[in-house]
Amino acid sequence: MHEDIAVFSGNAHPELATEICAHLGTPLRPVQVSRFANDCLEVQLQANCRERDVFLIQPLVPPVQENLVELLLMLDAAKGASAARTTVVLPHYAYARSDKKDAPRISIGGRLVADLMVAAGASRVLAMTLHSPQVHGFFSVPVDHLHALRELAAHFRQYNLDNVVVVSPDLGNAKPAADFARLLGVPVAAGAKQRYADDRVSISAVIGDVTGKDVIVLDDEIARGSTVLELLDRLRELKVNSIRVACTHGLFADRALDRISSADDVLEVVCTNTVPIPANKRVPKLRVLSIAPALAEAMRRIHNGESVSVLFDQKS
Amino acid sequence: MHEDIAVFSGNAHPELATEICAHLGTPLRPVQVSRFANDCLEVQLQANCRERDVFLIQPLVPPVQENLVELLLMLDAAKGASAARTTVVLPHYAYARSDKKDAPRISIGGRLVADLMVAAGASRVLAMTLHSPQVHGFFSVPVDHLHALRELAAHFRQYNLDNVVVVSPDLGNAKPAADFARLLGVPVAAGAKQRYADDRVSISAVIGDVTGKDVIVLDDEIARGSTVLELLDRLRELKVNSIRVACTHGLFADRALDRISSADDVLEVVCTNTVPIPANKRVPKLRVLSIAPALAEAMRRIHNGESVSVLFDQKS
Amino acid sequence: MHEDIAVFSGNAHPELATEICAHLGTPLRPVQVSRFANDCLEVQLQANCRERDVFLIQPLVPPVQENLVELLLMLDAAKGASAARTTVVLPHYAYARSDKKDAPRISIGGRLVADLMVAAGASRVLAMTLHSPQVHGFFSVPVDHLHALRELAAHFRQYNLDNVVVVSPDLGNAKPAADFARLLGVPVAAGAKQRYADDRVSISAVIGDVTGKDVIVLDDEIARGSTVLELLDRLRELKVNSIRVACTHGLFADRALDRISSADDVLEVVCTNTVPIPANKRVPKLRVLSIAPALAEAMRRIHNGESVSVLFDQKS
Amino acid sequence: MHEDIAVFSGNAHPELATEICAHLGTPLRPVQVSRFANDCLEVQLQANCRERDVFLIQPLVPPVQENLVELLLMLDAAKGASAARTTVVLPHYAYARSDKKDAPRISIGGRLVADLMVAAGASRVLAMTLHSPQVHGFFSVPVDHLHALRELAAHFRQYNLDNVVVVSPDLGNAKPAADFARLLGVPVAAGAKQRYADDRVSISAVIGDVTGKDVIVLDDEIARGSTVLELLDRLRELKVNSIRVACTHGLFADRALDRISSADDVLEVVCTNTVPIPANKRVPKLRVLSIAPALAEAMRRIHNGESVSVLFDQKS
Amino acid sequence: MHEDIAVFSGNAHPELATEICAHLGTPLRPVQVSRFANDCLEVQLQANCRERDVFLIQPLVPPVQENLVELLLMLDAAKGASAARTTVVLPHYAYARSDKKDAPRISIGGRLVADLMVAAGASRVLAMTLHSPQVHGFFSVPVDHLHALRELAAHFRQYNLDNVVVVSPDLGNAKPAADFARLLGVPVAAGAKQRYADDRVSISAVIGDVTGKDVIVLDDEIARGSTVLELLDRLRELKVNSIRVACTHGLFADRALDRISSADDVLEVVCTNTVPIPANKRVPKLRVLSIAPALAEAMRRIHNGESVSVLFDQKS
Amino acid sequence: MHEDIAVFSGNAHPELATEICAHLGTPLRPVQVSRFANDCLEVQLQANCRERDVFLIQPLVPPVQENLVELLLMLDAAKGASAARTTVVLPHYAYARSDKKDAPRISIGGRLVADLMVAAGASRVLAMTLHSPQVHGFFSVPVDHLHALRELAAHFRQYNLDNVVVVSPDLGNAKPAADFARLLGVPVAAGAKQRYADDRVSISAVIGDVTGKDVIVLDDEIARGSTVLELLDRLRELKVNSIRVACTHGLFADRALDRISSADDVLEVVCTNTVPIPANKRVPKLRVLSIAPALAEAMRRIHNGESVSVLFDQKS
Repeated sequence: MHEDIAVFSGNAHPELATEICAHLGTPLRPVQVSRFANDCLEVQLQANCRERDVFLIQPLVPPVQENLVELLLMLDAAKGASAARTTVVLPHYAYARSDKKDAPRISIGGRLVADLMVAAGASRVLAMTLHSPQVHGFFSVPVDHLHALRELAAHFRQYNLDNVVVVSPDLGNAKPAADFARLLGVPVAAGAKQRYADDRVSISAVIGDVTGKDVIVLDDEIARGSTVLELLDRLRELKVNSIRVACTHGLFADRALDRISSADDVLEVVCTNTVPIPANKRVPKLRVLSIAPALAEAMRRIHNGESVSVLFDQKS
Repeated sequence: MHEDIAVFSGNAHPELATEICAHLGTPLRPVQVSRFANDCLEVQLQANCRERDVFLIQPLVPPVQENLVELLLMLDAAKGASAARTTVVLPHYAYARSDKKDAPRISIGGRLVADLMVAAGASRVLAMTLHSPQVHGFFSVPVDHLHALRELAAHFRQYNLDNVVVVSPDLGNAKPAADFARLLGVPVAAGAKQRYADDRVSISAVIGDVTGKDVIVLDDEIARGSTVLELLDRLRELKVNSIRVACTHGLFADRALDRISSADDVLEVVCTNTVPIPANKRVPKLRVLSIAPALAEAMRRIHNGESVSVLFDQKS
Repeated sequence: MHEDIAVFSGNAHPELATEICAHLGTPLRPVQVSRFANDCLEVQLQANCRERDVFLIQPLVPPVQENLVELLLMLDAAKGASAARTTVVLPHYAYARSDKKDAPRISIGGRLVADLMVAAGASRVLAMTLHSPQVHGFFSVPVDHLHALRELAAHFRQYNLDNVVVVSPDLGNAKPAADFARLLGVPVAAGAKQRYADDRVSISAVIGDVTGKDVIVLDDEIARGSTVLELLDRLRELKVNSIRVACTHGLFADRALDRISSADDVLEVVCTNTVPIPANKRVPKLRVLSIAPALAEAMRRIHNGESVSVLFDQKS
Repeated sequence: MHEDIAVFSGNAHPELATEICAHLGTPLRPVQVSRFANDCLEVQLQANCRERDVFLIQPLVPPVQENLVELLLMLDAAKGASAARTTVVLPHYAYARSDKKDAPRISIGGRLVADLMVAAGASRVLAMTLHSPQVHGFFSVPVDHLHALRELAAHFRQYNLDNVVVVSPDLGNAKPAADFARLLGVPVAAGAKQRYADDRVSISAVIGDVTGKDVIVLDDEIARGSTVLELLDRLRELKVNSIRVACTHGLFADRALDRISSADDVLEVVCTNTVPIPANKRVPKLRVLSIAPALAEAMRRIHNGESVSVLFDQKS
Repeated sequence: MHEDIAVFSGNAHPELATEICAHLGTPLRPVQVSRFANDCLEVQLQANCRERDVFLIQPLVPPVQENLVELLLMLDAAKGASAARTTVVLPHYAYARSDKKDAPRISIGGRLVADLMVAAGASRVLAMTLHSPQVHGFFSVPVDHLHALRELAAHFRQYNLDNVVVVSPDLGNAKPAADFARLLGVPVAAGAKQRYADDRVSISAVIGDVTGKDVIVLDDEIARGSTVLELLDRLRELKVNSIRVACTHGLFADRALDRISSADDVLEVVCTNTVPIPANKRVPKLRVLSIAPALAEAMRRIHNGESVSVLFDQKS
Repeated sequence: MHEDIAVFSGNAHPELATEICAHLGTPLRPVQVSRFANDCLEVQLQANCRERDVFLIQPLVPPVQENLVELLLMLDAAKGASAARTTVVLPHYAYARSDKKDAPRISIGGRLVADLMVAAGASRVLAMTLHSPQVHGFFSVPVDHLHALRELAAHFRQYNLDNVVVVSPDLGNAKPAADFARLLGVPVAAGAKQRYADDRVSISAVIGDVTGKDVIVLDDEIARGSTVLELLDRLRELKVNSIRVACTHGLFADRALDRISSADDVLEVVCTNTVPIPANKRVPKLRVLSIAPALAEAMRRIHNGESVSVLFDQKS
């Protein structure tokens, strides 16, 4: 690909886009998003896209619907403006959690939104820590799927890991925690959920040995945090020594961050900057790691036609 | 089509859906829309859709992005639930105004959103007073396109029309006003816009004879109302006798309704209920006509395979 | 795009193609169109297309059906011959007038023919003065949409414009005339149509001040010319000073040119060469402006990946 | 299928459509085809299509391009009018002869036109005696493929077949003649073509025994007839006893019928009515067999969901 | 759907198809699969499909490639034969395990094969116990997804469950075991894998309490059985009381069944008949449950347009 | 195309791929095909494909189903790995023989498999001697179609051709033989088939003069060889002088090669290496010509964007 690169950002997370472009050494091109009196959006990409290798950076974070439609309009504008190729850089894909049909007549948002992006003109996708690896297969265009385990592991390796156990909140989805534990060379445990007569589900037990341990709770994303909070209660009952909480996507809705970090035994909450965290949410115990260098490197490789798998192979 | 009908409504305008179902004599089926902590929506259609003739009622009105994504998820759920056919009932299509590329590298939302609906599973569309008739051609599935001129004309025929002239705010888009004037048997006039040195555009003149006349200003939609307000100033300078303002889609953003109706010479503002109008916006001079009977009749004909064109031919 | 360019022309307007290629400095490649005994056409592109940037020049002018099928076969041949990209250069798109469904069960030719071109292999389209701007949205591939207002304005600026008014034949479609008047800095007026009891429609009035003026009638296309002729009658009744008639697409069917230009008060008929005008149709009052330089420049920019919008922005 | 049937005909062969409808016992619905001043066509189907089982009868015969575009517009109108299913009845498919790429960069019209029909809305096709059986595979929708060998054989069985041989004009495409000979229980022969130094191709020999025989020359279609005429010369040199010429599709361009039938030793020319034959072309030796009963029966079976293969199995 | 049903079976598992048809009370229609000398397959469906509601029963079991291509050819034949709707009944979908991209440049067979089925003509799919629920989203057509937990649970409820624990072989994929444990009202445990320096992965520990317990090992499918065998070793080290092994899909490759069932502490191996088990593989400890009644009931509901979700809701 | 080339081979014919790469001067990149315990295949392309010009060499030869699915998985892997373009090199396309619907409700494998390849990601196809030229039209992507007549003719020109006649086994498909005869400047003859009362078909006669001649029997492919063997019997009855048998694709199933070559009057059997011929099948009279140079040259031209038609024009 000898075409010039052109990088644009929607309104979801301009700080991340700026940081990525600084690493890439390419300017972040301006986008004008107009909202009309009837609440419709119109997007104008304000730099030439014709035969360019276009990247659109837009994590699908709250307000999700606004950010999604804005992204689809950006894709449409890039297609109409004759972009040679349009890559969606999707540091967070909220709809990835809607990945199965666990009740009749419900939408599978993860597949639908993937189809919408392709219909709007996406040539390829650069994603990060999708909720399940199968979501990759929802896209009919090539996907490069990064994860942040290397960044998270580098952070935790500064601590003594001798007494550490990684705990997944959900036995039914413990693969990332198991992978992370292997990466750190420590054991793994998991919360087990029980369904009560009143159809309520809660964590009834922790499968695996945690008593007296320094626990790292790992989840891919923390939104309202109720599962993690419930797990912390169980861990305390089991008399763990200390707790650190880590995730890739720190959505932190509904005062989740305050509620998790306020307990004395929680030493630290670690996440990455795939999701913007407003200043008023930030707490002293929060540590935000940047994945901008990894995304920038992946974009550089995509643009130059180099292997991206090399990149994430180094990580795990 | 011998299959049973199943009608669902999104959250955009449940009152209209209820009224339509009352006219149809069919129950409005419940829809559960869940918003997760990460701001994603999930839709569950709570009645059997399998081999049913499904209708989804959802005007694209503010908050447009929320209502659009909700509609797309409803379409996905209906497709996944094996609906025999899914018709989108679209009393208002906000993105229809994004129908041309009048600047480089902008999105054409009207075409994009039409493609998204089809990608999500729409088999056909029932629309009302699209901003331009060409928008019909943006859809790759059959469209039945109703208009509200019959309802509006019936309302104005109660008045003496001898001294009436219909005025379009924009000479460049005066066709609906010209059609409406022909329907009432009265003359037509139009505002002409001028571009000033500072790139500002305003109505500089009214083309046609309005002095001393009882004016009906007709537009397809009123959102912020700035064009209409400017036209009213010109009409006053030209010493019209009285003013009534009419439109199909009463969006009335930013106190538009107050500003238009507050002048003494404005006797009435007339719109239809394609767009929900909250109680606190309603003013004494506002008159809202119901298009539920027309939509219900069109849906009945679509379900029974009868001609819908007969319906709108009677109107014009 | 480093691929070589390859330009071909169908039989619709080879003179224009030749002129465009002269401006581009590239040879016009030969095409062999064979008609078999069973009246089928077969196209052979007689120069290598493999990985070339192919342009096919073919206005859809009478005989429209012949020219359309020839174009579709050229597209098929280019696709089968592994063209890297195929751009249809469409100086005139006759089916653009079939852009809405104003009666039940009619074809919308403008959308259908757009879909056929894409199905046959069109990667993009370069069009000129489409009948309505929404037709742009009928294409699912990128469209560059030029207009000829700059060329037309340059011509009329040679005259004294102090007493000039631009008149649109149809109030319902007056936008191009309003734009053109703004470009010349002169006022605008428009004919208003009335429907009679016998369903006949005619221009009953001219909205706006024309008496004593030097009128420029502007339409996008003149075919049979009946609307223009009717407008001229009204203008004479209103005692205009002089008349010039201008359009982009001079189809001039059924002696339209003779009938328009024969009146003494019509000083000039101006069109461009988007449509071929046979020698025997040309009259002394006809002035044909060339849009070959504009099309060649747009093609050069498309080939080089430069902005085309810059080009048409300069125009308006 | 309980939906009502609705049969329409384009302008290619209304007599055949009328005859088919008489056999079906269903009225032929009117179609209005308008030609505008710019030579574009517009189609209006003048009977309700909504949820109907629509059949469009249109052989692709000269003027092929006009008839093709008319058919595509009819398909578009039926789709837009919500037909439940649209079957193209294609008694002759002229573009079936463009079925291979025997030179570089040529169009393959047979596949292209099949794709265009499907893009325009065809749900299925009923074809007759396609030039090669592989053309069936060019369509991505179901095709019922009839042939006229039963009708032709019934006609020739009235004669004494003891001394008869069936001759194919082209050894390279002799399968239909071989099938027909097997059906009549008689031997087969074929003309062999030779390419001369000047690239001219002609029939240089007849492979097989024909001297003293009563010959039936069989081809699928006769257009200009040059191959048949050349074959007749060879047959005379080989002193055949008598000649009859038969084909399914009698296109008879360029006085082909006169030239073939004028020789004394040609006793008869037999074709079917898949292609309209104007009165002034008809000669005394011409015998036209009707395939309307076979097409009507196939349409009845398609409408009722009965097997069509039964029908053509009985034939061969 | 008032059309008749037509059920066909490929060669993958005719016994199951026969049993399903017995439950449905409809004949199993014959299919002729021919293998030509060049090893290509040709399928002929030997009963009328026209406008029928066609079901094709074919689990993708070894030889997978043969069974897959046979299924695709059956789909093509049904499409070409004008089936009204074609449902693939897929009791086992082997390629569902290829559901993620865990190495660079590998195929994702689960998505690809889903796309191939749709390309070949599948209107919908009836699947059973897909390897991960996200595979549902790989299909762009409606999927009804049954599971066999109800049948398995009914079998195990005959035993005393007081001392039972359900064990999943893989902590990273423990959701089905957790669901099954909830259904039986017993606790759950899981094997945890460790990666050694030589890149070997093995089960290093069992997370959860199993000592002295009556264990039910549950996996969705057992092929070579190495993971289960390794788990059994760990369970013995932890001194469990007894072991029963259960799965939905009993592929049992490479003497897996012998090796699992030969140990004295393994009391029983339970699977369903989604996969054919040849007589010579069957061992005394094997118990095969039939899911034909469940599939037949789902097919009956699909045909009649009744809710299938009701069916599987009763199960869990 | 300045991208690097990357050539991969499936397991169908690695020797041919190696020979092609030697001619191209490019390495053959490794492919890892894994077969899982459940008999599913997984493909990993073991060299960077990103933005590369990828060629996948895989003749569809027995085991056809295995080779086909392997090819489809290779295409999927290349698409997912962001290949710039993926060309399938298909020296033999077994399913090309399934090219027509000669019985009701049968699959048309030739079209289906073409669609599957495109669905899996094929950008273009390089094929050789397809069973009928119309198969070209089954593909919706560009096809370069080579034939081996030049190689075959070069071989036979070493002999004295004065007394030679080329014989096609089937009058109904004699075009390749006729072309080949023209190329050698010799006459042509053909076997004629007859259908007996018991529905058996056999060659009853040879149309054309063969007595005393040196015969070259030419077919596109020989699989079981029964037609050729039957033809040899007829030729012997007609007292031919000598026999040589030639074909492009030497499948030679069921001892066909032994049975054909064992007769004394058969001097030679000639084929090309489009199909692998195991050492134990090779007989002294067999002569295998290599088409690797022709395929390599075509691939080089495709990669460089040069005309391939030039290549095959030289041949005929």
